[in-house]
Amino acid sequence: MDKNDCAIGVDLGGTKIEVALVDGTGSILKKLRLATMVTSGLEAIEREIVGAAQELMQAATPTPLGLGVGVAGQIDSLGARVRFAPNLNWHDAPLQADLHRQLQLPVALLNDVRAATWAEWLYGAGRGCADLICLFVGTGIGGSVVSGGRMLEGSSNSAGELGHMTVDLHGPTCHCGNQGCLEALAGGWAIARRAREAIAADPRAGACLNRLVDNQLDALSAEQVARAAHTGDPLAGQIVTEVAAALIAGSIGLINGFNPSRLILGGGVMEGLPELVKHIDQGVRKHALQIALENLEVLPAQLHNDAGVIGAAAFAMQQFSKKG
Amino acid sequence: MDKNDCAIGVDLGGTKIEVALVDGTGSILKKLRLATMVTSGLEAIEREIVGAAQELMQAATPTPLGLGVGVAGQIDSLGARVRFAPNLNWHDAPLQADLHRQLQLPVALLNDVRAATWAEWLYGAGRGCADLICLFVGTGIGGSVVSGGRMLEGSSNSAGELGHMTVDLHGPTCHCGNQGCLEALAGGWAIARRAREAIAADPRAGACLNRLVDNQLDALSAEQVARAAHTGDPLAGQIVTEVAAALIAGSIGLINGFNPSRLILGGGVMEGLPELVKHIDQGVRKHALQIALENLEVLPAQLHNDAGVIGAAAFAMQQFSKKG
Repeated sequence: MDKNDCAIGVDLGGTKIEVALVDGTGSILKKLRLATMVTSGLEAIEREIVGAAQELMQAATPTPLGLGVGVAGQIDSLGARVRFAPNLNWHDAPLQADLHRQLQLPVALLNDVRAATWAEWLYGAGRGCADLICLFVGTGIGGSVVSGGRMLEGSSNSAGELGHMTVDLHGPTCHCGNQGCLEALAGGWAIARRAREAIAADPRAGACLNRLVDNQLDALSAEQVARAAHTGDPLAGQIVTEVAAALIAGSIGLINGFNPSRLILGGGVMEGLPELVKHIDQGVRKHALQIALENLEVLPAQLHNDAGVIGAAAFAMQQFSKKG
Repeated sequence: MDKNDCAIGVDLGGTKIEVALVDGTGSILKKLRLATMVTSGLEAIEREIVGAAQELMQAATPTPLGLGVGVAGQIDSLGARVRFAPNLNWHDAPLQADLHRQLQLPVALLNDVRAATWAEWLYGAGRGCADLICLFVGTGIGGSVVSGGRMLEGSSNSAGELGHMTVDLHGPTCHCGNQGCLEALAGGWAIARRAREAIAADPRAGACLNRLVDNQLDALSAEQVARAAHTGDPLAGQIVTEVAAALIAGSIGLINGFNPSRLILGGGVMEGLPELVKHIDQGVRKHALQIALENLEVLPAQLHNDAGVIGAAAFAMQQFSKKG
């Protein structure tokens, strides 16, 4: 990839769309942010992306090599169609062909977590590293694995569902139907569920959390649990300790299974509880296999909310670069 | 790899050494079996291997392309030294250079579980498959992963320690020091431990198992638990049910994480309890992610005790083939 190249990256989620012009050093030259009009359907969202991309193309010299779209959903193995995107309510959407036809620019689709991993790998905490794992702990938990200098794709392009590794086979039910998934213990939704249950079981212990949401338990989020823990609330502190234990258990499995030299931790829950990076680092050093720890660094992700657009653009540059 | 090529494969374990001449179709042309003289040290074992290899080289036309050694231990990233082999009591043994000097044949070292995976991949249940996981459930649990047509190695050549993924974070302690590893719930040693504890807790329920070992609880093995379960003993049946649950949980994590098209199950425990393949297949189909199951087959390993020598030879052929 040449540093003078550029591409357009799109981060397409259920509430917002970000579209950015990104150069070959991973820098954002210009970024636009739109609301996702989910109820208007596929074509309306495509029109939004096309409009924003055209605006950026006018600003771009040289012409962008292509457009990369990171989608919160499953992409088929050919990178042509969005098979399923629950937050967008899309099933089998021919996004690549549609955008290509309208923009006359090569288009590459990938899952949004993979896009963020590309960004961290090329321009963030994973720079120069051939074996890394990015684990993004937000409302849900997703991840992606680079092994021997290649991002793993799997047989149906779904490798890296790291939030759905069982870490507690007697643990709580996950949204996916399995029991004791990492996400069911440490994802944002699970943290909120755990807090609501704890408050219901012991309202006195839950008084501080309850106050934070004016007794509207439905409004309780992982962010508030983190805030309460940081002010010294014992119940919130206990929940954070449990979250750390689950993340350590999951990380041990990842380290022993993949033997990465970097474990990169990002996402909203990690940003709300940045001390978790140190706790996970200490925990895995106690309990993972010695040989698997040998080259390991545990690091926070660096690119935060920009990882999606940067990674989608980088993926497109890598796919469509003439030197590639 | 040409079908007329051949190589020598060595399966080097703590109790026996197998040395075989293997051709490019994975067929064993001749095999020798020796006892491992662990207490005699590195040089004595090397002499045994060299003697057996020389005998096979005399029988070989054409000359073997090389010698592959699958070692029950950790191999360095260069494939030159055995860093640690607990059953052989070796630390940092320069096995590749020693054997090469004595045999004047190219020598390749690899971990024994990787060797078995090469064998299953090229000639067994994994033939023609680019994304597979081999999970070997014996006294311990090991595995190896092929993703996108490459076997994963990791940053210190230790990728694939699949027995040391946490599946029960409140579970029993593992030999590795971690809690609730898959191996600590479903490895042969853990099955025996669980049975001994259950018999001690309820001697009446344990009567059948106790009889099988003449009240010598120390002699109880996973094999006897399997046999008792097959004769209808309720306690042994309960233990096997727990083992199946742990293997299902571990397999779900592997399937969601790596998205293989084949999960291949081998090792002594699986051979003693062959019905587990079906139970694991059914369990993962209920609880793994739909997209990760799409191409999945769950199959028993095919090459059994010969996988080690065949895989070690295949690895050498692949490394040293002129067409490679």
